[in-house]
Amino acid sequence: MSKIRLGIAGYGNVGRGVEYAIRQHEDMELVAIFTRRDPNKIGTVTSGVKIYHISEVNNHIEAIDVMMLCGGSATDLIEQAPAFAEHFNCVDSFDTHARIPEYFAMMDEIAKKSKKIAIISTGWDPGLFSIMRVLGISCLPNGCDYTFWGKGLSQGHSDAIRRVRGVKCAAQYTIPIENAVESVRKGNNPILTAGQRHIRECFVVAEPHADLSFIEQAIKTMPYYFSDYKTIVHFISEEEFNCNHSKMPHGGFVFRTGITGQNNTQLMEFSLQLESNPEFTANVMVAYSRAVHNLYLKGETGARTVFDIPVGLLVSNSMEELRKKML
Amino acid sequence: MSKIRLGIAGYGNVGRGVEYAIRQHEDMELVAIFTRRDPNKIGTVTSGVKIYHISEVNNHIEAIDVMMLCGGSATDLIEQAPAFAEHFNCVDSFDTHARIPEYFAMMDEIAKKSKKIAIISTGWDPGLFSIMRVLGISCLPNGCDYTFWGKGLSQGHSDAIRRVRGVKCAAQYTIPIENAVESVRKGNNPILTAGQRHIRECFVVAEPHADLSFIEQAIKTMPYYFSDYKTIVHFISEEEFNCNHSKMPHGGFVFRTGITGQNNTQLMEFSLQLESNPEFTANVMVAYSRAVHNLYLKGETGARTVFDIPVGLLVSNSMEELRKKML
Repeated sequence: MSKIRLGIAGYGNVGRGVEYAIRQHEDMELVAIFTRRDPNKIGTVTSGVKIYHISEVNNHIEAIDVMMLCGGSATDLIEQAPAFAEHFNCVDSFDTHARIPEYFAMMDEIAKKSKKIAIISTGWDPGLFSIMRVLGISCLPNGCDYTFWGKGLSQGHSDAIRRVRGVKCAAQYTIPIENAVESVRKGNNPILTAGQRHIRECFVVAEPHADLSFIEQAIKTMPYYFSDYKTIVHFISEEEFNCNHSKMPHGGFVFRTGITGQNNTQLMEFSLQLESNPEFTANVMVAYSRAVHNLYLKGETGARTVFDIPVGLLVSNSMEELRKKML
Repeated sequence: MSKIRLGIAGYGNVGRGVEYAIRQHEDMELVAIFTRRDPNKIGTVTSGVKIYHISEVNNHIEAIDVMMLCGGSATDLIEQAPAFAEHFNCVDSFDTHARIPEYFAMMDEIAKKSKKIAIISTGWDPGLFSIMRVLGISCLPNGCDYTFWGKGLSQGHSDAIRRVRGVKCAAQYTIPIENAVESVRKGNNPILTAGQRHIRECFVVAEPHADLSFIEQAIKTMPYYFSDYKTIVHFISEEEFNCNHSKMPHGGFVFRTGITGQNNTQLMEFSLQLESNPEFTANVMVAYSRAVHNLYLKGETGARTVFDIPVGLLVSNSMEELRKKML
């Protein structure tokens, strides 16, 4: 059986995660990596495949079954993804929730014209968490939803701290409040704002002679990002920062609590504990690349989300084998 | 919009659960209940719909969009389900894991001939737990699987105890061993037999003058059911039994732990805590009835399992609405 030939577009943390993930699947192979940077400055990569400048991507249309769009931000994807969908089947982890309908419409139109498949917004949230939310309302329509994030490093909040005057580097961890999680798990159906569900813990390296109390106040009062949360600020040395805060752990919980029949309480809970957020996101994307390839071979076209994809399409096993071993 | 018209075949605990569940969905209505018992002896039912003898079912072919097969045991389904699939779209919760391939093949052949859809083995295990196992291997191919059941009432084990001489009634609870669950959650990847994952706790009402030590020994040494497990036996009064052991709670955990990329440990966990096992099973079946109806309207035929069904088909919301609100 010929392998599914994948390309990586964007060689940051997620791109490297995809490079690693592909090795775990016997039915896949990585054929090329594309970057906006100078390929010569990246050096050799763990997989040994060749790195090309992104401008050369259209020379590889015949060689690649699915392009993994690993652009580092929503801005990258909004700009780059349409050009890829003109020539390639695509998977991405587009995660700007508010812009998903617009992004989907754009990708759907292009992929229908090019007769390709694009699965957008894979990963874990959006992605696996979204699947759990829909399973929750489908099985317990009379119920409540809760999503908690963390404990995990939030890139967006870390960036916001870095913009404060006097900050050299920073890491912000979103931490679910234990009592809130327990209250949900007990079926109390508490009414909780995001600030009542999460603490924000910040590790900050200040510039020499910076005004620490100014920095702490600036963080804690920052609207939207911190002002509605219990926020803890620690000032640490650059050594400690590099030693303890270079990993990107994350995770979270999706709960659905509901009442059925004769007033019985039912609880569904899904959680992730991730030592590496970008690597797990990459692994989910790679699973969806198999679905993209399957749908493409069936002649389907257009954009899809995780809501459209049966889980049986995410693995190399036949449905017959799955029924026998996994049901 | 016209509602999805459901029938219930088999009016035990799951059948009653389906009757309740349908009320939670605005796009569904229950139109009839079918039983093998004398319908006149069942009396009025909570939904107020009419109860018919099962022999009359074929008079209702035009009135029912999806038949919910709530037969109380695998034997019922193996015998009854093919006859239903000749005339109705069907959903069931067939749970004899070893016979699933054979059952699927039979239902697939009949449903293809009758141009109907049958989704088999819905519920939570098989069902939601099966989905989680496949999501696990797809996203973390280099990893380990763990399924724990309970704390919950096991019908099969309770029945086995009741067959011991001197036992009047019995309830057996399967309980996950806390330390084993914690070891898995910590990513230790322990090697655990079913007996190292679960305790079996039994509440037994003995006949007057029965030999209690004989009963206890007979239970604890029963091959397959108890001999490989730590088993605790309590003798209780019939009053206490009726008061504390008439509910049917259940639940469990599905774990997938895996290693990605640069040796990072990742954990996926799904769990259910159910006050009523049959009511939750019924709720899952009702969610899948919507998928059956959707596929039937598209002209699809044959048997399906949860592996074939995108979650977006389980809810009444449009995909557009799901993308906007749930992704």
